Amino acid sequence: MQLYTFFRSSAAFRVRIALNLKGLDWQAVPVHLRRGGGEQHQAAFLAVNPAGKVPALVDEDEVLTQSLAIIEYLDETRPEPPLLPAAPLERARVRAIAQTIACDIHPLGNLGVLRYLKRELGAGDDARDAWSRHWVEQGLAAVEQMLVRSPHTGLFCHGDTPTLADCCLVPQVFNARRVDCDLDAMPTLRRIAEHCLTLAAFCQAAPQCQGDADVA
Amino acid sequence: MQLYTFFRSSAAFRVRIALNLKGLDWQAVPVHLRRGGGEQHQAAFLAVNPAGKVPALVDEDEVLTQSLAIIEYLDETRPEPPLLPAAPLERARVRAIAQTIACDIHPLGNLGVLRYLKRELGAGDDARDAWSRHWVEQGLAAVEQMLVRSPHTGLFCHGDTPTLADCCLVPQVFNARRVDCDLDAMPTLRRIAEHCLTLAAFCQAAPQCQGDADVA
Repeated sequence: MQLYTFFRSSAAFRVRIALNLKGLDWQAVPVHLRRGGGEQHQAAFLAVNPAGKVPALVDEDEVLTQSLAIIEYLDETRPEPPLLPAAPLERARVRAIAQTIACDIHPLGNLGVLRYLKRELGAGDDARDAWSRHWVEQGLAAVEQMLVRSPHTGLFCHGDTPTLADCCLVPQVFNARRVDCDLDAMPTLRRIAEHCLTLAAFCQAAPQCQGDADVA
Repeated sequence: MQLYTFFRSSAAFRVRIALNLKGLDWQAVPVHLRRGGGEQHQAAFLAVNPAGKVPALVDEDEVLTQSLAIIEYLDETRPEPPLLPAAPLERARVRAIAQTIACDIHPLGNLGVLRYLKRELGAGDDARDAWSRHWVEQGLAAVEQMLVRSPHTGLFCHGDTPTLADCCLVPQVFNARRVDCDLDAMPTLRRIAEHCLTLAAFCQAAPQCQGDADVA
């Protein structure tokens, strides 16, 4: 399998974790989102994913897109270890945590959105940083509540084995630290993210461990 | 089942369609997102969903949140008619279309986001309208490509029966028309959305057919 990835993309980071948790053999195909106006907008990559977004996974000549859809596909085709619990209500909880991150938080901090704020709305660096922090802090506060209120929360977001929710949480916490969010009021998700990083699958998926990582 | 809903919420609209397609008996509990500073931020609703967002579905005293997670739950617990195909690659395609809408388009046009643009960044009406149109047009153009390029596209987004993808597409097209998007270059998704609305399940889920619809 080949994963079109960018070291700093949270969405690609999610899929890297899932591939590692499943113990799959995969190769990274780097797509640099900042270089040359963005390699994701160039014809070579648009032929792979017309939406011009990473991650995209190639499995037996089929291209899959959207990080959560890719992870569910991996879980359906390579069931061990499972990344979703068996019971429908529990599956719904794991997906709701994942989607709170993937729908309510992450899209607002996207590179394209920050560029629009700068170019079209004239927002300066401070205003863009405040924007990023606002949505991450608000969204992660909701995730913390979901974790604190549920008896299902364990060593990980759901029970004592990693799930789709953890694949989303860890990259979002990385991003939160990068934009200087205040996570003091979120001890549960910090504790879980730290525990995840004791596993090689999470650790080796981190941005700084990718072959395409740069210091820019 | 009770659905906490707001007539104009795209995410609630998705779940209303799914409930109707499944032929389920459900009651609407209206949460007015604009009245009184937003009923979603009041204690009564926060006790149901601490994230302060609609939709939330109550099924046998359990609260489920996040529209796509809710629809997958309905599909797992009430399998007929199915809203996802059986084959993993096809399921991945349907989820990718749904997530392109739910992750790449919809979050950027959210009421809270538009309020932030106005209050914190001083964006006027025209700038906010341009912002809304930009993300919808860019995102739906990607959806159109996903539809045009695939032999799986049929009367609906995937084959000739409605799926999770159509539950997301129709509300997004409603929203696109509301913010005056140019959909001329997207004949496939327009054709599919129109076909969906020949079904009572979609039609009766539309904003103007809800008990809480107002003319404001």
